[in-house]
Amino acid sequence: MTIKIGIMGYGNLGRGVECAVKQNKDMELVAVFTRRDPASLKIQTPNAVVASVADMAAYKDKIDVLILCGGSATDLPEQTPEAVKLFNCVDSFDTHARVPEHFANVDAAAKEAGHVGIISVGWDPGMFSLQRLYANAILVNGKDYTFWGRGVSQGHSDAIRRIKGVKDAKQYTCPVPAALEAVRAGENPDLTTRQKHTRECYVVLEEGADAARVEQEIKTMPNYFDEYDTTVYFISEEELLANHSGIPHGGFVIRSGNTGWNEETKHVIEYRLQLESNPEFTTCVLVAFARAAYKLAKEGQSGCRTVFDIAPAYLSAESGEYLRAHLL
Amino acid sequence: MTIKIGIMGYGNLGRGVECAVKQNKDMELVAVFTRRDPASLKIQTPNAVVASVADMAAYKDKIDVLILCGGSATDLPEQTPEAVKLFNCVDSFDTHARVPEHFANVDAAAKEAGHVGIISVGWDPGMFSLQRLYANAILVNGKDYTFWGRGVSQGHSDAIRRIKGVKDAKQYTCPVPAALEAVRAGENPDLTTRQKHTRECYVVLEEGADAARVEQEIKTMPNYFDEYDTTVYFISEEELLANHSGIPHGGFVIRSGNTGWNEETKHVIEYRLQLESNPEFTTCVLVAFARAAYKLAKEGQSGCRTVFDIAPAYLSAESGEYLRAHLL
Repeated sequence: MTIKIGIMGYGNLGRGVECAVKQNKDMELVAVFTRRDPASLKIQTPNAVVASVADMAAYKDKIDVLILCGGSATDLPEQTPEAVKLFNCVDSFDTHARVPEHFANVDAAAKEAGHVGIISVGWDPGMFSLQRLYANAILVNGKDYTFWGRGVSQGHSDAIRRIKGVKDAKQYTCPVPAALEAVRAGENPDLTTRQKHTRECYVVLEEGADAARVEQEIKTMPNYFDEYDTTVYFISEEELLANHSGIPHGGFVIRSGNTGWNEETKHVIEYRLQLESNPEFTTCVLVAFARAAYKLAKEGQSGCRTVFDIAPAYLSAESGEYLRAHLL
Repeated sequence: MTIKIGIMGYGNLGRGVECAVKQNKDMELVAVFTRRDPASLKIQTPNAVVASVADMAAYKDKIDVLILCGGSATDLPEQTPEAVKLFNCVDSFDTHARVPEHFANVDAAAKEAGHVGIISVGWDPGMFSLQRLYANAILVNGKDYTFWGRGVSQGHSDAIRRIKGVKDAKQYTCPVPAALEAVRAGENPDLTTRQKHTRECYVVLEEGADAARVEQEIKTMPNYFDEYDTTVYFISEEELLANHSGIPHGGFVIRSGNTGWNEETKHVIEYRLQLESNPEFTTCVLVAFARAAYKLAKEGQSGCRTVFDIAPAYLSAESGEYLRAHLL
């Protein structure tokens, strides 16, 4: 008996889920659903089918959990509440401001259908959120810090690519080492945006483009770059391909706090991720929570959940006895 | 409506729970139970009572959760299964080999009484266990490392104190920096006991004791020191008091693993604790899980649980809406 997985959308996340399912022996990929022509899509898993999103209902009883791999801006707000009518679902919705609305929509549809929908799964939101929650529950009197990077920001890379004269670009977000050290040392510093992160841009120019003007446009771009110390490197297309084609990311969640009758004792909790591929790691988290969705549904539960609502043991393929004997 | 807490045992852990309860506005310390003469015990909380363990049953309806602060060797195996007949309970049982037996005993008693008992709560077992579980569920193909320290090992300090000629001693367990860096770099090294940790001993001799003999006895002590590189410092009683009276601890849980269709992509997950006081941090974890025990019991659940079985939101005093809005 394996957990039958469906994937909706076959971009970086969809391909990552496919790899992650292969690593999990209690799971099996049944189908990849696409909005493109299914015949045009080649997947790697031998016995899985590629089907049109339009035919998804036909798989209602063949799939235990559907993992949605679309974007948070327009795909998931529509797709997850619809899909959860047919399947237990997991998505990586990451627009923080719209979480309450998305939660309510998925919850209503999931309860009516008797399915489980787990939203906002990944590393931030996701594992970073879990670390913030645990650390806040333990160190009641404390201060939270999140540093991202060194890693590629897709949004910032896209923003550079929209500048006239730019052929291609990659942007790295980097924590400022001195700020990180101060936080780690329990100094509880107050840090401005500029003091926490720097931005590194690797830019390929169109022929004849004005490098000085492009650099100026990047560094002064409101919201994206104007509040940061930004460094721009102009490189060749070959160099971008050779050295900057990966999608690494990661970061740090740190909480420092005080305990004791007079709050005289200091503690620092730190969680760090170093990821060679942001989407591949995200999808490993999605797949672990897909297992949880499966188990919760088997118990007869329904409705929307986040990572906060799932007991950790549900993520594991091992029994309670095994976990207590080997990981406790 | 506050959560009414009882403490059993008023050593380092008991005093730590008292401080932690003070920091949590939704909690109230009702009573400290002791095996000593209650009149001999002075606690810090103005309106809490000190009572004899023999009178515990009289508090059955006045306490929501009892936090057991005894030792794992002889206290908790007896006390938790007994106490859970009267109260929801949380303990910090840390004898790994005896967890299955303790779990079964607490589970049977808790189910019969309709109470919740959460065992093995703290940081290891506890928060470190949680990190191992999450990291294993996410990175299926990987390797686990746990480093402890720099911190005081009570067991090793006691072992030194039992040597003839030793008046007092403190032992620090220290991770080996090179090993830690290799693990962090994702090199997946195979490490021997000696390669992972060193041991530092600060020893006060009795007058006239033979330092060379004591040092030799320490360094060759089976199980405790013989497999480690150990350094022994002989210091005065004044220096031990001035510089080594704290109980700091901490450590690292790291899992590195690979993803991708051919497992070609590397990731490293790291969790680090830096604790100025081992018992004060442990008790903050105990108190957060006491809140979980209270909520689970309110839902009508009963039986034994570990940290693996508790959804993280149960640890927090905040609502699901608040958590999704602020920590997700």
